Amino acid sequence: MTAVQTRPLTVTEAIESRRSIRRFQPEPMNQDDLREILRLASLAPTANNVQPTRFAVVQNPELQAKLQEAAYGQSQVTSAPAVIVVYSDMEDVLQTAEETVHPGMGEEQIKTRAERLRQSFAGQDVAQRGQWGLTQANIAFGFLMLAARGLGYDTVPMLGFDPQKVRELLGLPDHVQFAGMLPIGKRAEEGFPHHRHSVERVTTFY
Amino acid sequence: MTAVQTRPLTVTEAIESRRSIRRFQPEPMNQDDLREILRLASLAPTANNVQPTRFAVVQNPELQAKLQEAAYGQSQVTSAPAVIVVYSDMEDVLQTAEETVHPGMGEEQIKTRAERLRQSFAGQDVAQRGQWGLTQANIAFGFLMLAARGLGYDTVPMLGFDPQKVRELLGLPDHVQFAGMLPIGKRAEEGFPHHRHSVERVTTFY
Repeated sequence: MTAVQTRPLTVTEAIESRRSIRRFQPEPMNQDDLREILRLASLAPTANNVQPTRFAVVQNPELQAKLQEAAYGQSQVTSAPAVIVVYSDMEDVLQTAEETVHPGMGEEQIKTRAERLRQSFAGQDVAQRGQWGLTQANIAFGFLMLAARGLGYDTVPMLGFDPQKVRELLGLPDHVQFAGMLPIGKRAEEGFPHHRHSVERVTTFY
Repeated sequence: MTAVQTRPLTVTEAIESRRSIRRFQPEPMNQDDLREILRLASLAPTANNVQPTRFAVVQNPELQAKLQEAAYGQSQVTSAPAVIVVYSDMEDVLQTAEETVHPGMGEEQIKTRAERLRQSFAGQDVAQRGQWGLTQANIAFGFLMLAARGLGYDTVPMLGFDPQKVRELLGLPDHVQFAGMLPIGKRAEEGFPHHRHSVERVTTFY
């Protein structure tokens, strides 16, 4: 089966047609599309532009088999041609805070702002600020799913895995926190329609 | 100035053209568009479909002025015709877990799954599970920004506010956790271009 080139979807189309897909076509990901999807996800906003989100992209059947084991055997991890593990690394953020300040600010401002950022997290322990960074990584996780769908790809967000095992398999430090694992590819099943609360149920108008 | 009807944006266009906008045109939000944006955001996925995300939509200059005070005077809170406060309410989720299970499952399965969900959070205190729910609400927060941009609206995600004051102003219980405040409307300024890490800097390929 050859990939069908689809036109880029609107946001509305992408959100409405996104479903959790667990069976994928076997063709490898188009590597240009994959990079474009990651680039788009990295444009997600974060408070103070801290950018704690990191991506581990696995396109290696042996490593995918090990990730599947860490995910209690869920078959979508090996059915997909690629798996993007999305995590937050706040310790890297704090160590390299200068990089997140806009270069146009000038050297003095960059130093000042980086120092202010470090100070603002100094009262939190590694786990606390890791948890905070995770909220920001989850915004990017949402962008990632929609960027993929917009370009005709399908995904399934997963939290059902042993985080420590995944850290070990990917060689990641203990402090990183996972937004989730995202198998990605072209759908080979229809998936299930959404079941959601109504807007009225979840919204209060003031 | 009359609103210019724009064609719906693709995901790529929406992500690339999204910027933090702090000055808005004064016209009220089109209420159909507002509901559509909320509906699209509510289609964001959540682990086990728990759907902890809630929206408080403020279109009331007096209340916006009070929210602005709680946000340390930031002017975008009153410049925008509407402010969407996005929060997570895991206690509501657990109390009404039956509603989140697909009705097609049948009465018996619904009971079983709702009970299993409650048990899975029984070992966590209110703050811990609130923090977990927040990660899921942040996925919807990302969807919300893109849904808005896709329909031609602009936003600015804000975390700089006193959460307890905002709970009081909106009459929300102490346990809710905020993904952020999102002033929304049509842009009256250009905003700043993105400054982000390169894909190479934040991605590891395996």
